[in-house]
Amino acid sequence: MLSKNKIKFIQSLNRKKNRDESKRFLVEGNKLVEEVLRSDFIIETLVCTSGFLHQHPEIRSTVNELIETDGESIQKASLLQNPQDALAVVCQPDYFEPAPNLKKELILALDFIQDPGNLGTILRIADWFGINTVICSENTVDAFNPKVVQASMGAIFRVKTGYTNIEKFLSETGKNQIPVYGTFLEGKDIYNETLTRNGIIVLGNEGHGISDAVSRFLTQKLFIPCFSSEENKPESLNVAIATAICCSEFRRR
Amino acid sequence: MLSKNKIKFIQSLNRKKNRDESKRFLVEGNKLVEEVLRSDFIIETLVCTSGFLHQHPEIRSTVNELIETDGESIQKASLLQNPQDALAVVCQPDYFEPAPNLKKELILALDFIQDPGNLGTILRIADWFGINTVICSENTVDAFNPKVVQASMGAIFRVKTGYTNIEKFLSETGKNQIPVYGTFLEGKDIYNETLTRNGIIVLGNEGHGISDAVSRFLTQKLFIPCFSSEENKPESLNVAIATAICCSEFRRR
Repeated sequence: MLSKNKIKFIQSLNRKKNRDESKRFLVEGNKLVEEVLRSDFIIETLVCTSGFLHQHPEIRSTVNELIETDGESIQKASLLQNPQDALAVVCQPDYFEPAPNLKKELILALDFIQDPGNLGTILRIADWFGINTVICSENTVDAFNPKVVQASMGAIFRVKTGYTNIEKFLSETGKNQIPVYGTFLEGKDIYNETLTRNGIIVLGNEGHGISDAVSRFLTQKLFIPCFSSEENKPESLNVAIATAICCSEFRRR
Repeated sequence: MLSKNKIKFIQSLNRKKNRDESKRFLVEGNKLVEEVLRSDFIIETLVCTSGFLHQHPEIRSTVNELIETDGESIQKASLLQNPQDALAVVCQPDYFEPAPNLKKELILALDFIQDPGNLGTILRIADWFGINTVICSENTVDAFNPKVVQASMGAIFRVKTGYTNIEKFLSETGKNQIPVYGTFLEGKDIYNETLTRNGIIVLGNEGHGISDAVSRFLTQKLFIPCFSSEENKPESLNVAIATAICCSEFRRR
């Protein structure tokens, strides 16, 4: 039985303030709930139909609180337009202190990404390209925003995502001669540059690109060439699209 | 003065049925309205503030009907959450009969793309990579959907976008030995394949990929390698992300 209080709590997770206070977040939809069941994340409450439970008998042993109910009740609690057969209240992992091995690893650093769909898509790209760490500036949208979780298609459970002061983070990597890349209109053609296997790729804000405060830590400015005709050129690529092309270029070599 | 009837008509353009009947579509926001002013598209009605008009004096000579009004009235007509200083009712170009020169050109063919954000982003990618023609299956979302127009960031005014029976279209190109590419889980590593300068890249539906009816026309199946660890691999990339990586690979060579 899904109580009114529980419904109220589930819906309150739409707001960052409530997620921060409770240290919980919401995972919705059959596929995503299956992903979180397979992950190391701790599920506090799982709400699902008897049909979903029947398909996933392991739920009984992995979940703190199990609420079996009907589709109608799930609909009442859901933030989605078309709710499915399951939703989960999940514990946020402690925000990690980012400590990737930058002598070996390639990671992403996000400088003020605002759109939840973009952040979710960037996590999904990182996951595909085997990038295990994404560091976000403190003004980047919350990774546990339900829209980020949804757009990440489960990548949020696999890619370590942390928030920090990225200027400070980058200034410390500078002492260790770690390469720091970013895309700029005046950068060098990414297809012809030598790219390392390790380092940091910085991605900037949707409207303003990489901030001045961050760009001074870059060691190499890259540019994704535009193949459109000169007289009527588009201004820019979406940040998730630029991320995809950068990751593809770093990994294919 | 923005009449009630005009507001009603503008808002009616949110629905495909009304766009089809009136052969009009809606363009919102300062940047997009500036883009349509620079394009060959015919603007039937332009609604803007006096400030916007002052910045763009050419409007008076390029627009059939000009309605100067205040931000509050624009807000009443707008479909956006945060309307700006201008919106335009624009004539749809006649849906073109797709006739690209496939012996020379590279084009995209979309097989049942459902999400307006994805279609808009794909048009923006095509624009960046100098791909001038995008052919959509008849069940692909309408390119004049306001969300597509918005996500395209003006690419809709530059990339020729037409709707047709793509199976029929592909069967005819087959007679002329045009290469037809598509991405498949069982395809060949895109980074190592020989890619031609001309031909068709087919992109499939968000959930189901390329349909069987369409896949039989492919001459080369490609795969974007996943670099994630074996035990917990992501299932797929978003279709717009796959489009970006394909376009980048075709163009960089």
